[in-house]
Amino acid sequence: MFVNVEHIGIAVKNIAASDELFSKLFSIQPYKHEAVESEGVTTSFFKINETKIELLEATNPESAIAKFIEKKGEGVHHVAFEVADIVSEMQRLKNEGFVLLNETPKQGADNKLVCFLHPKSTNGVLIELCQEIM
Amino acid sequence: MFVNVEHIGIAVKNIAASDELFSKLFSIQPYKHEAVESEGVTTSFFKINETKIELLEATNPESAIAKFIEKKGEGVHHVAFEVADIVSEMQRLKNEGFVLLNETPKQGADNKLVCFLHPKSTNGVLIELCQEIM
Repeated sequence: MFVNVEHIGIAVKNIAASDELFSKLFSIQPYKHEAVESEGVTTSFFKINETKIELLEATNPESAIAKFIEKKGEGVHHVAFEVADIVSEMQRLKNEGFVLLNETPKQGADNKLVCFLHPKSTNGVLIELCQEIM
Repeated sequence: MFVNVEHIGIAVKNIAASDELFSKLFSIQPYKHEAVESEGVTTSFFKINETKIELLEATNPESAIAKFIEKKGEGVHHVAFEVADIVSEMQRLKNEGFVLLNETPKQGADNKLVCFLHPKSTNGVLIELCQEIM
């Protein structure tokens, strides 16, 4: 079951400059920063009600975020949904014909297990499923 | 004040096909369809907790959605935030240097007053401010 729009991920070139920009936009400050070395990104989080805005800057040129910006420029990179049970949701979506980018849940930012769906199976939207690690 | 991620707008080529796709993804049906003639779009809405997913199909080739798909393909078109007072928020953001795409609030889908910010001032993200019409 999809329970919430957990966060919206935005690819940016310079997280310090974007922290300033989004702080002005929202009139709030980011509440945390976190590096995810396995993904080659550093992140920054804002929270609006039940949904986070995650800014992502690449820390190396092989990072998916670096490649995304090179191809498409800065902008919305993915939309993440909190699901009640990531393993059963992954199986259900696979059976429905969606293309999973990882076959088992992997560790993401913000203490989450995550799985991405290939945007070719979801109208060009990179969808992340996530579940808090208890 | 930004109070909620009100909806995420997704540009699609064929809303009937995308209704089916997102119904499978979310395991829920769209709860309404609405045409916005002034914008040249037909829309479909899903709701996950406090946030709606709005699918948008162009109804004419001059529509912003038609042009977006031509240039970038299907995908996330905009992110809409519910604000407490759209007029004062527009003034505040203009003073902060953000570029408003309309100088006064205009009527959008779903009984809302809306204003868009130019993505060049917001890291490539088309931001919509919205406030329910009472």
